[in-house]
Amino acid sequence: MSDIKTYIEANKDRFLEELFGLIRIPSISSQSEHKGDMVKAAEYIKQTLLNAGADRAEVIPSKGNPVVFAEKIVDPSVPTVLIYAHYDVMPVDPIELWTSNPFEPEIRDGRIYARGANDDKGQMFMQVKAFEYLVKTGQLKTNVKFMIEGEEEIGSPSLEAWAKEHKDLVAADVILVSDTGMIAENTPTITQGLRGLAYMEVEVTGPNRDLHSGLFGGAVANPINVLAKMIASCIDENGHITIPGFYDDVLEVSAADRENLGKAPFDLSAYKKSLDIEEVEGEQGFTTNERTGIRPSLDVNGIWGGYTGEGSKTVIPSKAFAKISMRLVPDQDYHKISDLFKAHFEAIAPKSVKVKVTAHHGGYPYVAPSDHPGFKAAIKAYVDVYGEAPIPVRSGGSIPIITTFEKVLGLKSILMGFGLESDAIHSPNENYSLNRFFKGIETISHFYHHFNDEMK
Amino acid sequence: MSDIKTYIEANKDRFLEELFGLIRIPSISSQSEHKGDMVKAAEYIKQTLLNAGADRAEVIPSKGNPVVFAEKIVDPSVPTVLIYAHYDVMPVDPIELWTSNPFEPEIRDGRIYARGANDDKGQMFMQVKAFEYLVKTGQLKTNVKFMIEGEEEIGSPSLEAWAKEHKDLVAADVILVSDTGMIAENTPTITQGLRGLAYMEVEVTGPNRDLHSGLFGGAVANPINVLAKMIASCIDENGHITIPGFYDDVLEVSAADRENLGKAPFDLSAYKKSLDIEEVEGEQGFTTNERTGIRPSLDVNGIWGGYTGEGSKTVIPSKAFAKISMRLVPDQDYHKISDLFKAHFEAIAPKSVKVKVTAHHGGYPYVAPSDHPGFKAAIKAYVDVYGEAPIPVRSGGSIPIITTFEKVLGLKSILMGFGLESDAIHSPNENYSLNRFFKGIETISHFYHHFNDEMK
Repeated sequence: MSDIKTYIEANKDRFLEELFGLIRIPSISSQSEHKGDMVKAAEYIKQTLLNAGADRAEVIPSKGNPVVFAEKIVDPSVPTVLIYAHYDVMPVDPIELWTSNPFEPEIRDGRIYARGANDDKGQMFMQVKAFEYLVKTGQLKTNVKFMIEGEEEIGSPSLEAWAKEHKDLVAADVILVSDTGMIAENTPTITQGLRGLAYMEVEVTGPNRDLHSGLFGGAVANPINVLAKMIASCIDENGHITIPGFYDDVLEVSAADRENLGKAPFDLSAYKKSLDIEEVEGEQGFTTNERTGIRPSLDVNGIWGGYTGEGSKTVIPSKAFAKISMRLVPDQDYHKISDLFKAHFEAIAPKSVKVKVTAHHGGYPYVAPSDHPGFKAAIKAYVDVYGEAPIPVRSGGSIPIITTFEKVLGLKSILMGFGLESDAIHSPNENYSLNRFFKGIETISHFYHHFNDEMK
Repeated sequence: MSDIKTYIEANKDRFLEELFGLIRIPSISSQSEHKGDMVKAAEYIKQTLLNAGADRAEVIPSKGNPVVFAEKIVDPSVPTVLIYAHYDVMPVDPIELWTSNPFEPEIRDGRIYARGANDDKGQMFMQVKAFEYLVKTGQLKTNVKFMIEGEEEIGSPSLEAWAKEHKDLVAADVILVSDTGMIAENTPTITQGLRGLAYMEVEVTGPNRDLHSGLFGGAVANPINVLAKMIASCIDENGHITIPGFYDDVLEVSAADRENLGKAPFDLSAYKKSLDIEEVEGEQGFTTNERTGIRPSLDVNGIWGGYTGEGSKTVIPSKAFAKISMRLVPDQDYHKISDLFKAHFEAIAPKSVKVKVTAHHGGYPYVAPSDHPGFKAAIKAYVDVYGEAPIPVRSGGSIPIITTFEKVLGLKSILMGFGLESDAIHSPNENYSLNRFFKGIETISHFYHHFNDEMK
């Protein structure tokens, strides 16, 4: 397998040109005006997979954006790996903070700058190119399938039904995913746990119209003040979430496991410096990595109401809104948490306002088993390339569909991700280093033969 | 003076056409793209005043939008009335809630619907037309001056300096203002008190960039959550404002005065019904009218931060913002209150964020003396037209410039306003009844001879 480096060296300009072609399609799933771009991106990937060596590739409709399916069956009796990825990306606002056009990739200082450079177009392409290498050099001894969706960033609302419907088509032995991160540029890392998510929207209505704050101020409930109070009451002075029943299903992680997780290198002062903050903040009694890895959290992701333009307007608005999401840990159920949240917000709303709570989307938390053949194969692939075993981490992020796959397809997912926090994946100036892009291709190409061995 | 009714009847279509011409100019002072409209509106008023009978009318520059000055001097030895009004209007958002174009006035059910129909273009026109009537019928025995500015809705930042510079030009015995309200359509009302205002903006900065709420949620302070908490802490469970020193200069109103104020007719259930709210909310121990008339208040006028578009985005934003204003009562000083607010917000901000507090504008509270010749003349004018004395009220609104005039020009202002709460002056579908427009002209026309008598 030593010629993977040679193959990458010989083809890297083409790899990048193909990736850039995909990035140039602004496939933002949360904005309906990009509906056409979703289909364009799917068709582009289908063609890329055929060129890479798939026997068959199709853009298959779902209730939402289509799913790209492709496969190469080398021998029905050997193991099958199903690669999951997503071609949709996050919105780009605030656009004014981007140094270059988010949909016109630029390479600066060894990094690709663009929306989707990492998440997930860049990471998806590592999978595609590792596959291409194995096919083109006659080394593929595993069956490979691809299932690439276009709704991950909005919570994969259609993929569960799609996977149920196409259960036989996507049948496999393991799912392989590159959509997570690593600890540092050259520190191999495998994500063993993911937090779940419950994403809610709250609408508070006070008076039936915007009012003059002079004539009414002090006598009528202001929905912004009320919403602020409701939000403030959700987290107490110890960083605990106050929603009744919220922690009921949280598995306490043992002292030994916490000690183990604490071994991952972490420099608090560099962390604070990189974010330009004086202090971190969170649940008392837990470290920063524990706060994002093994404990749930509650964040307001957006808030708006009243006059937000230039200058001043003395108004009491009729309505105020917030988008609020909670990250969940095993064994919290996002349906139950969404219900608890809704009931709590309805209970704490004063009679002077009306409150409407809607659930956007959610996902279960996930833990990967250490003795799974896929997990063991991944560790060996990292050792091949990095010379050391990867550090297992619990990521604070969520890939809700991972637990759905477990339920619907009966398959565990192995999370071989190559992102860094500094990649700014949901922020302006998203980027991805060429070093990790090429090393990722190399590492993934080693996964397959180890997996075949582990499955024997 | 009985032919004022005849004069109005004969000229009312022209009065409305002239007013509509002014309304059609979108003179929104808080939005810089309307800079040109400010000049257009000023020129329009200048011409209207010349047509009405002014000897002289000019558009005079200020540091901001220009001021329209006009005068008719009938005899240097008789009293002089200075009319103050403003030609700027509030923004129109949310535009989608307007039934008709805010800058294309429509008459429906006896009401003019448009931005500025009442505040203050409609009320200003009552002054202009009462003046025109007296001039054209040879009945004007008082000197009249007009000072009409274009920055009232943004706190009159330039008028103090302008008035100082033109002190001799605007010298008078009293200021007459139509920019306040009445209790009901046919209940004459004189505004004896106005609240002051301190308008602030708060910017909270957490991390130096937007972060993925999964990877960082629970470990890094979210500026929206922090801002919500800071806002929530400003008002306690009794409706008291918690900013240290906030109430130090509040004059407690005597039990007798509170009883007097309580005589103004008020129907709480109709009030709640008109706003479609189940309960009012405010400082404990005070009635609704007391809460807006004699007590200070704190309202968030706008809040924004994070993702506010369609769907969901799992982000911890770098920044969150709020516009917060406080209504003040005698003897609160808005400079002092702005300083207290700033110090308080800086003090309660956790070390995990940075906070920046800016003062937008402010104004002193005001009380008109019952024994002033102008106040007494106004009462007689109302009796002439309505057959009963007006009810004195304390308005919750602010006209900050009124106290500035007292300081700079040494003049008291008499507030003969004809607005109603249902006029929705800072909201969509602002409107003004033709009944009050014409009755206002009539009442104001009676003010002058009574004022001359009271000044003897």
